Amino acid sequence: MPVANNVAIIGMGTTKFGENFEMGYNDMLVDACYQAFEDARIEPKQIQAGWVGTYLPFSWGFEGNAGTAIAEPLNLYPIPVTRVANYCCTGMEAVRNAAIAVASGEYDLVLAVGVEKMREVPSRGSLVAQHVERGHPLYCKGRTAPGMFALIATRYFEEYGIDRSILAKVAIKNHYNGSLNPKAHFRKAITEEQALNAPPVAEPLRLYDCCPTTDGAAAVILTRADLARKFTDEYVIIRGIGLSVTGGYFTAQFDQTFSFTGFRSTQEAAQQAYKQAGIKNPFKEIDVVDLHDCFTITEIVNYEDLGFAKKGEGWKLIDEGVTTLTGELPVNTGGGLKSCGHPVGASGIRMVNQVSEQILGRAGKMQVKGAKTGLAHTLGGPGAVSCVIIVGQP
Amino acid sequence: MPVANNVAIIGMGTTKFGENFEMGYNDMLVDACYQAFEDARIEPKQIQAGWVGTYLPFSWGFEGNAGTAIAEPLNLYPIPVTRVANYCCTGMEAVRNAAIAVASGEYDLVLAVGVEKMREVPSRGSLVAQHVERGHPLYCKGRTAPGMFALIATRYFEEYGIDRSILAKVAIKNHYNGSLNPKAHFRKAITEEQALNAPPVAEPLRLYDCCPTTDGAAAVILTRADLARKFTDEYVIIRGIGLSVTGGYFTAQFDQTFSFTGFRSTQEAAQQAYKQAGIKNPFKEIDVVDLHDCFTITEIVNYEDLGFAKKGEGWKLIDEGVTTLTGELPVNTGGGLKSCGHPVGASGIRMVNQVSEQILGRAGKMQVKGAKTGLAHTLGGPGAVSCVIIVGQP
Repeated sequence: MPVANNVAIIGMGTTKFGENFEMGYNDMLVDACYQAFEDARIEPKQIQAGWVGTYLPFSWGFEGNAGTAIAEPLNLYPIPVTRVANYCCTGMEAVRNAAIAVASGEYDLVLAVGVEKMREVPSRGSLVAQHVERGHPLYCKGRTAPGMFALIATRYFEEYGIDRSILAKVAIKNHYNGSLNPKAHFRKAITEEQALNAPPVAEPLRLYDCCPTTDGAAAVILTRADLARKFTDEYVIIRGIGLSVTGGYFTAQFDQTFSFTGFRSTQEAAQQAYKQAGIKNPFKEIDVVDLHDCFTITEIVNYEDLGFAKKGEGWKLIDEGVTTLTGELPVNTGGGLKSCGHPVGASGIRMVNQVSEQILGRAGKMQVKGAKTGLAHTLGGPGAVSCVIIVGQP
Repeated sequence: MPVANNVAIIGMGTTKFGENFEMGYNDMLVDACYQAFEDARIEPKQIQAGWVGTYLPFSWGFEGNAGTAIAEPLNLYPIPVTRVANYCCTGMEAVRNAAIAVASGEYDLVLAVGVEKMREVPSRGSLVAQHVERGHPLYCKGRTAPGMFALIATRYFEEYGIDRSILAKVAIKNHYNGSLNPKAHFRKAITEEQALNAPPVAEPLRLYDCCPTTDGAAAVILTRADLARKFTDEYVIIRGIGLSVTGGYFTAQFDQTFSFTGFRSTQEAAQQAYKQAGIKNPFKEIDVVDLHDCFTITEIVNYEDLGFAKKGEGWKLIDEGVTTLTGELPVNTGGGLKSCGHPVGASGIRMVNQVSEQILGRAGKMQVKGAKTGLAHTLGGPGAVSCVIIVGQP
């Protein structure tokens, strides 16, 4: 059977995100998974298969490039465990493949976990700068993530007549939300003055326009929807999952449709997920959103790519307060990547958990009243890979 | 529905394995995939989702760590494409996850491809030596693959009273089979004298006991069994897939059941696959096998772990000629890892293709008469991960 409406999330776990120098890779994995086991009211030995999403585990030898990365610290032997990776969609890919496996009937109870340790890794320089194989030398080499997304901001400013004051509103919103989130990396509200006067990173993006580098892990337990209530009354249903792989920046020179004001991968992933969920009007039918705000400008173009606003009008959602915690469509209620940080493999699962907690009414000070349907979205690499997961009430 | 008996392989492609200095990563991918497209009588644009298995793609920047690794060279945009990795089971993991997705009904026509470029990679020293995080210093550090499997040979010799002359018979068989395989890395038969007098690598393993380092790619196209005939009359059915993750060598000091004469991961994966396929007597019910002969001793212990021989009696299968091309249970009919080499992400899919070609009667000089059921097996990392895929006639 298809994934949509047939797979439930019955357990969720998320570590504190931040500079977790006191926790190793395995400590974070175990923390997130045991939170999820407890939430699902299961024992680890009940798990029948697992998927681990981790993007750059290589600092620890070659560990992390196989299912042993979670099978060993959790003692899951001898069940199947698979490693997946897909740029910043790595965590959601673990959820997606796990959900497909549950839908197939091959397994009834599975684990998806994402983890990344980024603070104590010796830098290899800009990861993006390592993309050396092909393409135009200016498009493809020496480019950093802030540099890439600065182009989006510059072009968006030019096309639609906004300026940095709009970006600042995204930063202020997400920092405020993060101040309410006990698991966020940064838990501090910022002022407009702070946002506008911060040191430049890649103009027009300044410090508070960029998400930090962070350690973290997050996990979910999935089962068939018709089995969920055997475990717990507190669960959500996966209503749709879309994933799309496109060229993004790195093939922009070949692709006349690449606009520098949005990403086809997000548009395609959203359409796949909306179709599965039967959603015609996302703005009206979705109550709470976690989307990929790696930079403040990304949140704005994502509003458009996800269909919450028309092309060129996404900025109005933040300008008019629509996406604040008390607005009509609250976005990044836990502070987003901006406040939580972005441990690549963990982020997508943290986002799924955040919107799921909202639907279960467990989001504490971040709670959006009456949230019934939530959307989580990640955008990966050079804008090339996107995943959208929609969850709802049973 | 479950994978077993409900998923068909309708297209297969394998590059020439070897020192493919004239081919880049993408060239090999495209070669293997277009062979598979042609075999399945489809156009690439019909593919609905993809999985790519590649273990160590990092020599080319960070390409290969995302679905873009195949979406870009094949222009598969905007469909979902996932990267998977699981030690030497990486290729089979691509097949496994793709097969599960077909079984779920989420997609009807999918691609699984594996690729590795190993000959021109600057060595990072022994990969295994990079396992630095945990465990006993003698068990876990500075160990090379030949060194690890030499321990198996030494212990097996001690327990069951054989010597290097038995290992030589495996090498002679697999080199002979490779001499018949136009796609093998090494296409030369060897003599017993050559095998016995070869230079030592890690005693008792000598040069011809070890598989080479190789470039290659392999691909399959999967669809639902009930749809297969719409595409082609030449297809096989997946009768079972088992995957198991265990501790292997690296946790041997904690695991009193680790015998140094076999691998629990293979035993578990085989039992999962046999259960799905309804196989009670593997020796009688399976007609042709490709198994993980990274070293000659590994082939012998795999005979036992896969249930073709009793514990301590696997060596008799090679000693008595049972597993030669004209024997009762031909093993590694294309020359195995010994002659084909072992490009990690590609090997598992090459093996699935080899046994599938046997079932379709397309194996040329390597053909096993009347082969109806085939088994492919990979063993990964420190003996920690194994995958078994059983294919049969529709």
